[in-house]
Formats: sequence, C-alpha cells, structure tokens
Amino acid sequence: LIGSNESGAEGGELDRLGEFGLIARLTNGLEMRPDVLLAAGDDAAVLDTGAGDVLVATCDVQVEGVHFRRDVATYAEIGHKALAVNLSDIAAMGAEPRWALISLLIPSEVKPVDLDQVYAGMRTLAGSYSVALVGGNVSSTPGPFCIDMTLLGTASRTRAIPRSGAAPSDRILVTGTLGAAAAGALWAVEVQDPVVFSTLSSNTRERTRTALVAPTPQVLVGRALADTGVVSAMIDVSDGLAADLGHICRLSHVGAVLEAERLPIDPAAGEVALAYGRDPLSLGLHGGEDYRLLCTVGEKNLGIALEAIARAGGEGHVIGRIVKEAEGLHLLLGGELAPLEAEGWDHLRAKA
Amino acid sequence: LIGSNESGAEGGELDRLGEFGLIARLTNGLEMRPDVLLAAGDDAAVLDTGAGDVLVATCDVQVEGVHFRRDVATYAEIGHKALAVNLSDIAAMGAEPRWALISLLIPSEVKPVDLDQVYAGMRTLAGSYSVALVGGNVSSTPGPFCIDMTLLGTASRTRAIPRSGAAPSDRILVTGTLGAAAAGALWAVEVQDPVVFSTLSSNTRERTRTALVAPTPQVLVGRALADTGVVSAMIDVSDGLAADLGHICRLSHVGAVLEAERLPIDPAAGEVALAYGRDPLSLGLHGGEDYRLLCTVGEKNLGIALEAIARAGGEGHVIGRIVKEAEGLHLLLGGELAPLEAEGWDHLRAKA
Repeated sequence: LIGSNESGAEGGELDRLGEFGLIARLTNGLEMRPDVLLAAGDDAAVLDTGAGDVLVATCDVQVEGVHFRRDVATYAEIGHKALAVNLSDIAAMGAEPRWALISLLIPSEVKPVDLDQVYAGMRTLAGSYSVALVGGNVSSTPGPFCIDMTLLGTASRTRAIPRSGAAPSDRILVTGTLGAAAAGALWAVEVQDPVVFSTLSSNTRERTRTALVAPTPQVLVGRALADTGVVSAMIDVSDGLAADLGHICRLSHVGAVLEAERLPIDPAAGEVALAYGRDPLSLGLHGGEDYRLLCTVGEKNLGIALEAIARAGGEGHVIGRIVKEAEGLHLLLGGELAPLEAEGWDHLRAKA
Repeated sequence: LIGSNESGAEGGELDRLGEFGLIARLTNGLEMRPDVLLAAGDDAAVLDTGAGDVLVATCDVQVEGVHFRRDVATYAEIGHKALAVNLSDIAAMGAEPRWALISLLIPSEVKPVDLDQVYAGMRTLAGSYSVALVGGNVSSTPGPFCIDMTLLGTASRTRAIPRSGAAPSDRILVTGTLGAAAAGALWAVEVQDPVVFSTLSSNTRERTRTALVAPTPQVLVGRALADTGVVSAMIDVSDGLAADLGHICRLSHVGAVLEAERLPIDPAAGEVALAYGRDPLSLGLHGGEDYRLLCTVGEKNLGIALEAIARAGGEGHVIGRIVKEAEGLHLLLGGELAPLEAEGWDHLRAKA
C-alpha cells in the first residue's frame, strides 16, 4: 500500500524508468490542439467542449495487492477509496466533480454480494458530492480485482488550477494534517507486531486506519481555493508531500524550501511512528496517500487563501516558500537547509 | 478471445448472473438527473455539459487472457484494438470521438519498448479520427496486462442514437460483413490445427486475423447515419449479432425477425468455417467482435440510410425487421421461423 522506492536487485527497466518517467516517455510528442487546454502531466486533463465551463477529466485505478488488500479494507471501503482518489484529483484542479465511469475487473472469488458492497461504498461517497455514476464496464480477469475509474468534472474557464503556476516568493500551503495514511499502513500492512500494536490507543488505530482505507477527498476546499482566484498552483498529496511538491516545482520551473517545524504531522501518525521507532517527519514528508491539497499563493494573498480553506472545513498550514529553480528543493530543519529528495509513492516501483 | 457461453459445472454466481445481469444489478436504483441524458445500459453515456453539443462517454477494457493474447496479437495491434473497441461504441451513438484517457496495468514482463509499440498502435488509429490522448494512469500489477480506456466524444443534442428507439415494422440493417473475427479466433485461438490451417488461403488468414486483432471501427458510418436523422436505434456488434439485436429488443421493448439468407457472412469467415467443419451462419450470428453497426430504420427511410452508409464507406445490408415484443426474437431459415437465442460474447462468462 505505502510503497518503497527501493527498486532492489530484481528491479527491471520499468522500475528504473519509474511511473513519471514512463508517462513522460509515452506522452512525448503528443500534439496539443486548441480543445485540449491541459493534458497528461497534471492532476486532470482540461478540455474545451464549447460550453462556458471547461471539462476536467481524470482516471485512477485501484489494484488489489498494489493499492488495497481485502484483509485490510472492507469491500465498501475499497469502493469508497476508488472514487475518493479520483475526487481528490478533481479537487486539486479546483473543479466540481460530476460524472463517473467505472470499470471492474472481477476475479472468480469476488461475488455479486461483494460487488454490491463496493457499489454501496462508491454510491455513498458519490452522493456526498452529487457525482452521478453514469456508466462503465465489467470484465472477468484471471488476475487481481481492479477498479478503474474515470471521473469527469467541470470548472470555470478561468479557474482550473494547474501544477505549473508557482512562482518564486509564493508561499506553500497544505490543507490538513499529514502522515496518517502512512501510519495506518505501517501497523496494518508493513509491520504487524501485536505487542507494539496493543500500545496504540483505539482512537489512533481508527484514525490511521480510516485515513488509509477510506480517505476523505477535499473537494469543497479545492473549489473554495479556486474561487479565490489567488492560487498559482495546486496538486493533491497522493505520492507524498515531498514528491508532490517536486511535481509542482518541475512543472513550474521553480525550487522550494519546506520548513520541517511547520509541517502539520497528524497526531495519530506521530503516536504510531514513535511506537514503531519511526521518524514522524518522514511519514509526513514521504508517506503519501494523504489526499490533502498542496498549493502555492503569493504572500499578499495568504490571508484570502487561509480564510477560504477554513470556511470550506480545511486546516490551512503555511509550510514553506517557493524559490528559484536553481536553488532546488530543500528542507529547513534546526536552522539548517538539507537537500530534500522528492521521493514518494511510485505506482510502478511500489510493492504492496 | 471469442468466448463460450457455457458456464460449465465450475461456473460461479457471477457466471450465472452474467455481464448484463451484473450491470443491471449494480446500477439498479441509480438516480437519474437532468444532466444525465442517457446512462448505464447503452453503448455510451450521454451527458449535458451545457454546451450546444452533448458529451458522449464510454469505457472498455482489454485484459490479457480474456480479450487478447500476446502470442496472437502484436503490441501495436493490442494498442490499436484497445482504442478501436471504444471508437466502435462512440460510432454506435453516431457521435464524434474526441478525447481518450488510458489506464495501463503493467505486469513486470511488459517492457517500455513494448509499451512504445502499444502507444504507436493507439496513436496511429487516434490520428485517423482526430482523437487526442489527453491523459491516463499507469500502475504495476501482479496480474495480466490490461489496457482500460475512457473515450469521450461529442454529438449534436438531437442526434445521439440510443439502443431504445426501435419500433415494430422498422427494418434491421447491418453495415458490413459478419463472422470474420470469430473465424480468426477459430484458427488462431480455439483450434490450432496445422493441417486444416494449411488449406486456408493467405488472403483468408490475413483478413480473419486482422478482423480479430485490429478491427476497424465504423466511425464515419455511424456519424453519417446520425446525420440522416432517420435511425431509430443503433448498437455496435461486439457481443455477437443475435446478442446485440437482443439488447436493442430489450431496451426498445420489441421483438425481431432476422432473415438467415440475408446475413452478409464474410466470405473469409465462410471459408474458415467450412475448413473447420463449423456452420458459417453460427459465426455470423454469435461470433461477436465484428464491430459493424446494427441499426433500425423505418421502411420509408431505408433508401436514405443505405445511401448514407454507402457514402461513408460501409456496406448496408437489410437483414430483418422489428416486430412486437410479444412475438420475441426469431430467425427465418428455409421459410421456417425458429426461436433465436440472444447469446453471444459475455465478458464474465467467457474464457480466452
């Protein structure tokens, strides 16, 4: 679930290329055209249908053994998460989610009653955001259970927020706490140690498990930020804070300084990290699957952005600033600047 | 590839429910709303974005071992077909294909150079119809290679053609020959008999192989038919002629009579069927994966429809007529009416 970037001795060519290298390779040289306002490389594509609003389109898949395990999540949670990760991509564009298409690849051991639960989990979450499940496809598979989803949304023509607009001196904001999903994966997947586990409070177990298997996408926060018109770049934190900040930096041609003391590490993540002898900061920086929004805003507009986040039910935290590209990506920790590796979740390198 | 409907003694609950039963079960009770003009159950969903044209959205997956085999198709052909099957669904709405999102599930043995070929096959076909590849997703998988695609298109608000508009006395048309893909599957997948195979002409081998692994979707024919405004129902022949006619009948609340002597069995399919001791008619009725268009038209508009098909490069064949629902689905053969089982390709029951 929360993956390692170690490609290991057995790592093949795809491991070396990685998810983002492969996407860059496959999409290299694809022509742009006037009705494609933003294509591969952002959270979602932005398309001009001729309507006043633009169409925003994203797809993301959940593969058993890579993104979920049936011994950790219920079927309803698996359905919830399949939609939640797509909602988070739409949220990161500041768009309104509207229509979902669902493709199920069904191994023989998954039964109709199980799929009823998957759909129940999806429908409940879809109802919260007025998303209509409008179509899809089912197929048998000799392999793992997969739920692939395409989510379509709409956004005001001038308001969809790309990853590429960050500028030096912008401040970096995150809209909620970090590390809880990674903490859930630590005790539920990676280190199943009953003695250490028994020391965790039930609140901590529940908060970190929920963060892992049934994350809450920040759709309203994303729309509120888009409505302000002051956000220069936005992404959702799925690969990990450092990796996702790295995506903004790469596409905006800027560098960044994150301030370690300002990172809102989830208290439950802190408790799990300490119990298992891990560094809470590392969970917050590299854990991934937080599904918070990470955005950049000019300093003079910081108040507007923080107010919009709070009004929409998020927690705004100012965690660093954008610098020139040549200055690279750094972490400020104990008064010292240390290079920050933009590593995190990579869907090709990771093993569940 | 071309599957059997025998669920067999080992068939589970999903086998008994079938693809269409499962979709009906999962989508039961989904609310309709004004911006969803047509949802699950047709070739594609039809959505109101507020633009003059409506948005048409479909998704279809190709799973190794279910829909393709790497010992039968090249990587470029696998990429071509992943797009072709989606183009065929857009064609069946009479819509114009515009934008594709591609989700790749990549097992460790598929290399970047292989994926380059998959994309080359997709890009060539996409270029033929001005489809932009605008996004997608890659993930590793412990299971089979899968290509899931969502294809978006646009159609005039009054012109998108559903499956549900057929009326008694309408004539039934198909836009090209039938059975070639099933014939290709017969010699390439089901019965690999080198002695019989050696009796086939090279033209027959090539035509049936191409029909199977690199079908040509009838996008221009679909649009030409939509432009006439006289087509009452349309579907693409993917599950098999009888099964797809069954879908039209079920959604239109009508019955149908197919005339066996009028079915345009592909000559190459006829040659393969005879060599292997199979019935050519059965390949044409139940083989599936023909990717022709099947539509219904009032008798007085037959000339308009046939002319539109011919102008767009298709072959129009009048193969039967729509009757009242109570009369059921029949095949007229040798002057006798026999009940026609609406069987065909079922993506849950089939085994490659």
